[in-house]
Amino acid sequence: MAIILGENQYGKAESRLVRIYRDQPRHEIRDLNVTTALRGAFGPAHVVGDQAGVLPTDSQKNTAFAYAKSLGVESIEGFGLALARHFVQDIEAVQGARIEVEEFGWERAVVDGAPHDHTWVRRGPEVRTAAVTVDATGEHVIGGLKDLVILKSTGSEFAGFYRDGYSTLAETHDRVLATSLTAQWRFTGVDEPWDAAFAGVRAVLVREFATVQSLALQQTLWHMGHAVLEAYPTLAEIRFSAPNRHHNLVDLTPFGLDNPGEVFHAADRPYGLIQATVTRDDAPPAGDAWRASAGLA
Amino acid sequence: MAIILGENQYGKAESRLVRIYRDQPRHEIRDLNVTTALRGAFGPAHVVGDQAGVLPTDSQKNTAFAYAKSLGVESIEGFGLALARHFVQDIEAVQGARIEVEEFGWERAVVDGAPHDHTWVRRGPEVRTAAVTVDATGEHVIGGLKDLVILKSTGSEFAGFYRDGYSTLAETHDRVLATSLTAQWRFTGVDEPWDAAFAGVRAVLVREFATVQSLALQQTLWHMGHAVLEAYPTLAEIRFSAPNRHHNLVDLTPFGLDNPGEVFHAADRPYGLIQATVTRDDAPPAGDAWRASAGLA
Amino acid sequence: MAIILGENQYGKAESRLVRIYRDQPRHEIRDLNVTTALRGAFGPAHVVGDQAGVLPTDSQKNTAFAYAKSLGVESIEGFGLALARHFVQDIEAVQGARIEVEEFGWERAVVDGAPHDHTWVRRGPEVRTAAVTVDATGEHVIGGLKDLVILKSTGSEFAGFYRDGYSTLAETHDRVLATSLTAQWRFTGVDEPWDAAFAGVRAVLVREFATVQSLALQQTLWHMGHAVLEAYPTLAEIRFSAPNRHHNLVDLTPFGLDNPGEVFHAADRPYGLIQATVTRDDAPPAGDAWRASAGLA
Amino acid sequence: MAIILGENQYGKAESRLVRIYRDQPRHEIRDLNVTTALRGAFGPAHVVGDQAGVLPTDSQKNTAFAYAKSLGVESIEGFGLALARHFVQDIEAVQGARIEVEEFGWERAVVDGAPHDHTWVRRGPEVRTAAVTVDATGEHVIGGLKDLVILKSTGSEFAGFYRDGYSTLAETHDRVLATSLTAQWRFTGVDEPWDAAFAGVRAVLVREFATVQSLALQQTLWHMGHAVLEAYPTLAEIRFSAPNRHHNLVDLTPFGLDNPGEVFHAADRPYGLIQATVTRDDAPPAGDAWRASAGLA
Repeated sequence: MAIILGENQYGKAESRLVRIYRDQPRHEIRDLNVTTALRGAFGPAHVVGDQAGVLPTDSQKNTAFAYAKSLGVESIEGFGLALARHFVQDIEAVQGARIEVEEFGWERAVVDGAPHDHTWVRRGPEVRTAAVTVDATGEHVIGGLKDLVILKSTGSEFAGFYRDGYSTLAETHDRVLATSLTAQWRFTGVDEPWDAAFAGVRAVLVREFATVQSLALQQTLWHMGHAVLEAYPTLAEIRFSAPNRHHNLVDLTPFGLDNPGEVFHAADRPYGLIQATVTRDDAPPAGDAWRASAGLA
Repeated sequence: MAIILGENQYGKAESRLVRIYRDQPRHEIRDLNVTTALRGAFGPAHVVGDQAGVLPTDSQKNTAFAYAKSLGVESIEGFGLALARHFVQDIEAVQGARIEVEEFGWERAVVDGAPHDHTWVRRGPEVRTAAVTVDATGEHVIGGLKDLVILKSTGSEFAGFYRDGYSTLAETHDRVLATSLTAQWRFTGVDEPWDAAFAGVRAVLVREFATVQSLALQQTLWHMGHAVLEAYPTLAEIRFSAPNRHHNLVDLTPFGLDNPGEVFHAADRPYGLIQATVTRDDAPPAGDAWRASAGLA
Repeated sequence: MAIILGENQYGKAESRLVRIYRDQPRHEIRDLNVTTALRGAFGPAHVVGDQAGVLPTDSQKNTAFAYAKSLGVESIEGFGLALARHFVQDIEAVQGARIEVEEFGWERAVVDGAPHDHTWVRRGPEVRTAAVTVDATGEHVIGGLKDLVILKSTGSEFAGFYRDGYSTLAETHDRVLATSLTAQWRFTGVDEPWDAAFAGVRAVLVREFATVQSLALQQTLWHMGHAVLEAYPTLAEIRFSAPNRHHNLVDLTPFGLDNPGEVFHAADRPYGLIQATVTRDDAPPAGDAWRASAGLA
Repeated sequence: MAIILGENQYGKAESRLVRIYRDQPRHEIRDLNVTTALRGAFGPAHVVGDQAGVLPTDSQKNTAFAYAKSLGVESIEGFGLALARHFVQDIEAVQGARIEVEEFGWERAVVDGAPHDHTWVRRGPEVRTAAVTVDATGEHVIGGLKDLVILKSTGSEFAGFYRDGYSTLAETHDRVLATSLTAQWRFTGVDEPWDAAFAGVRAVLVREFATVQSLALQQTLWHMGHAVLEAYPTLAEIRFSAPNRHHNLVDLTPFGLDNPGEVFHAADRPYGLIQATVTRDDAPPAGDAWRASAGLA
C-alpha cells in the first residue's frame, strides 16, 4: 500500500478581461471572465516541491491578456480553443488544458432613440459560457449559458405524482413556472459559427420553455433539449441544471380575498433542482469534455 | 443624566411579491421586493416589553400581499404610497411609515420573432426603486434605480488633479469609464405619472453619461443630475452614488505588444466611490424623505 | 430658481489592507477593509470639471497603505483617526474626512494543542467596524460590529401584540430568537482604549442577549443598549440594526410527530428588521458623526 | 440515430434545517443545509410528462424535517446515510440517492466567563460538509469542509518555476500564503465515528498547513493529504480545491518606505486555483461516490 498523488490541475481563475475594438467609430466590447487550468506532469511540484515544470498561474493570466490583444476575441469558444492549444503545444509539462470563459452581455445605450457608438449598459443576469478542453482525448468545445432567469405565468401544471407518507403537496393544473437556467451543449466539431450557434440555441430554449404545456420541469427540459438537438446537428448533447424557483400562491382568504393565480411569494430556499442530459444515441465519445475539476464533488 | 430610547423603527424587510395580471390573454408581471418600516409610539415595546401597540411585522407583510391583490401594483411609487398611508391612518400607534420597494425588470420572451403573451426573461442587473415616507413632515416620494451598470470606451479623461507625496497615478486623456449607478430623485408631488417619469429620467441619465466628454466622474454626475432636473420640473433633487469601476489598461510591453486602449483588467476592489446631490436652490424641504433607517451610519 | 450642487463626497472604497507584525517570532495580523471619503471645496470638479483641488482616490489608497507601514495599525479606530486628520490638515481642499474601516478576525491555528506563531484561521462572519469623521463639527469616533449572528433556543416570547384585519400570526411564549446584529457605538472622546472597549461592549451585548427573557427583539435591544451605556460612561449612544431571522417551527403533525421546539426551518426572506437607538439624554451633539454618505437613502 | 434522455437526477436543494436538543438544561444545536437528489426510473417524467413515479421534491424536504425529529441529527454523515437509504429502499422508482449536507458551526456564547446553556454565536465562514451516495455501486460517504480560510505570514516560497515568453512574476522565498480550503475525504466504511473523524482530519490539515515549509501550494496540499491518509486508515482518498488568495506586497518605495513583508494588498480576482487528489493506491473503487450532479461541467 502506498499513498500517491491522484488527479490534479492548477491554473488562474477569474481573470476579468475586457476587450475593446476601437478601429471603427462604432466600438465593440467583449467582457470576459477567463479561467485556465493545466494538467500534466506535475507530480514533482506536489511531492517534492520542485516547480521546474510549473508555468505560474500569473503567466497563464498574462497569456490570456496578450492573446486578447494579438488574436482578439471573436468568440469565447474560439478564444478558449486558442489558449488551450497554446498551453498544450508550447509548454512542455502540459498534457491537457481546460479553459472556461464567461461572457457578460452589454447592449448599446440608447441615446435619442439610436444605439450609441461607444456606450453600453450591462445586460444580465444571464451569462454566456464556454468550456474548452484539449488533451489526449481530443479537442472538445462546450457552449452554454447560465443564470437565464425565465418565467411563465400559466401553461404549467404538476399533478399525478407519487405520494408517500411524507407527501402533503397539492396538485395543480395552473402554476407559475420559473427557473434560473444553466445549459451546456457539446459540439462535435471545433470549427463552428460559434456566435450564431449560441444565438440559435438560446432562441430554441426560450421558445420551448414558453410554448410547451409543462407537466413538470423535467418534461420541459426534455423538450428544450430535444428541440435543440433537432435544430443543431453538430451538437452531440445538451445538459441542464434548472432550479425550480418556487412561486407560492399566497393564501388571501383570511383577508376576504380570493387569489386566482395573481399574487405570489417568490421563495428563496429550498428550491427544487432538476438536472438532465439530452443526447444523441450515436454521439461521439465525450472524452474529457465534461471534466471540470480535479474530481471534486 | 438618564439613558433613554432614541430613534427607532421596525418592519418587515424584503417580502418578495410577484403580481400577475391575467385578465387578458397577454399577461403582465410586476416583480417586487417590499420593505415596510413603522415609526411611532413604540417606547413601551422596547422599555417594558409591552407589545400592545405593535403591529407584527408578519401583519405588515400580509398587508402588502393583500394590497397587491385588492389595489394592484400600477407603479411601485403608488403602491408604496398606498401602504404608507394605510399604516399611518389605520394603525393607532403608527406616526410614520417608510416603504421601500425594489422592482425587478422582465422582458417578454421572444418566440418566432414575437413577444410572448405569458413568458418573460429577467432583465438585470438594473433594479428600479421607490422609497415613500408618510409622516408629520408630509408625504414624500423618491424614485430611483440601482445597479445600472454603464460603460463608455472613450470620451473620458482624468488629468490636472492635485498631487501630494502619496500620488503616483498617471494622467490620462482617454480611458474607460464605468459605474454601477445608484440614483434617487425626489418628487415634489405625490400624484405623478410614475412609470413615465421613471423611463424619462433613466433615458436622460444614460444620454448624459454617453454624450458628455467626461473630465471626471464627478463632472459626469453633475451633468446627469442637471439635465434631469432641467427636464423634470416636478423633481426637487437627485442624488447619486457611483462606484468608479476601474478598468486598468494592461501593460503588454513585456510581450512585445502595444495596447492603445484595447485590453483592460476590470478590477473588483478597491474602487472609487463618488457621491453627489444636484438640487434646486428653491426645493421644498425634504422633511423625512431621506430618513431611511433608525439613524445608523 | 437655479440648479446647484448639493452634498457630495468622494473617496476610495474597500482597500483590502493586511498588516503583518513580524518583529517577534510570534507574528501579529490585522486584516482591514478601508474606505476613505473626502468632503470640501469640490464644486469646480463637478460643475466645470476642474480637478486641481482633487486628491485622486488612488492617492488616498496609497496613503492608507503607507500609513499602515509608518504608523501601524494599533486599532482601527486610531488608524481611522490618523488618516482622517491627515486628509483634513494636509490637503488644502479637504474640509471633512470620513474613514470607515472593517476588521476581519483571525484566530491562531492550533497545532498540537498550542496556538501557532504565524498561522491563523479566519473567524467570522462577525466583523468589527469603525467610522471616524473629522470636520468642522469635531472629531467623532464610532466603534461597532456587524454580522454578529447570535441565537437563543429558548427564553424568547412574542405575545400580546396589536391585531388588525391583516393579522394571522399566533402568539408564542417559547421561540427561537436569532439575529445578525449590527451595532455602532459613539464615543465621546478620541483617546480611548479602543481594543479593550470593543471587547467589553461586545461581551455586554452577548450577555444581555443571552440572559434577558425576551418579550420582543425591541426589548432585547433596549436592554443590550442600556447595559452597554451603563458599563461604558465614555459612550454617548449606541445604535442597532437587527434582522429578526425567523426560525419557523415545522408542522410535523401530518407525519404523526409532535414538534415541541425541536425542528425549525430557518427562513431567508422576508425577515423582521428592528432598528433602535439607545442614548444618554445629555449626550454631546453628534455633529457629522453619523453622516455616512452624500445623503442617499 | 435517435435523441434520448441521458443522465438525470432531481431533488430539493438547500432545506435550511435547524435541530435543537432541549431535553437537558444545556441545549444542543445542529444547523444544516440539506440537499437531496434522486436517480432512477424517471424517463416517463421527462419524455411523456408522466409523474406517477416521481416523489415530489416537497415530499423529500418533508422527509428531511421529519427524520430530524424522529431520528435526530447525531452527525451529518449519519443523517445523510439514513435519508439516502430511505429513498432507495422505500420509494419504488428510486435507484440511487445523493444527499449533500452542509453544517454551520455555532459556539456557545460566553456569559460572565462561562459558556451559556442555550445561546450561541455563529462561527464561520468554515462549513462542514457531507456527501452520501447510496446506489448499485454501494454506500459511499464523503466528509469534508469548505471555506476554511487559513493564512501563514511566513514559511512559504515560490521559486525555480518554468518561465516562458509570458512570464513576469518574480521569485520569492518569503511570502504570505493564504487559501479558502475545500477538502473532501472518502471513507471506506459507513459506520465511522463521524464527528471524531471530522475533528481529527481538520486538525491534521491545519497542522500541516502551518508547519510545512511551503515551496508551492501544490506541495502544501500534498503534505496535508498525505498526513491525513497516514493518520486515518479508514480513508481511501482526499481531494482538495484551494484558491491561492494572493496577498501582494505593496510597493511603498515611492513614499520613501521599505516594506519587508509587512503591508499587503489582499486581491479578489484573479486567483490561483490548485486542485489535487491524494489517494491510496489500493483504495476501493469510488463507484458513484463523487458523482454530484447530472454530469454538468
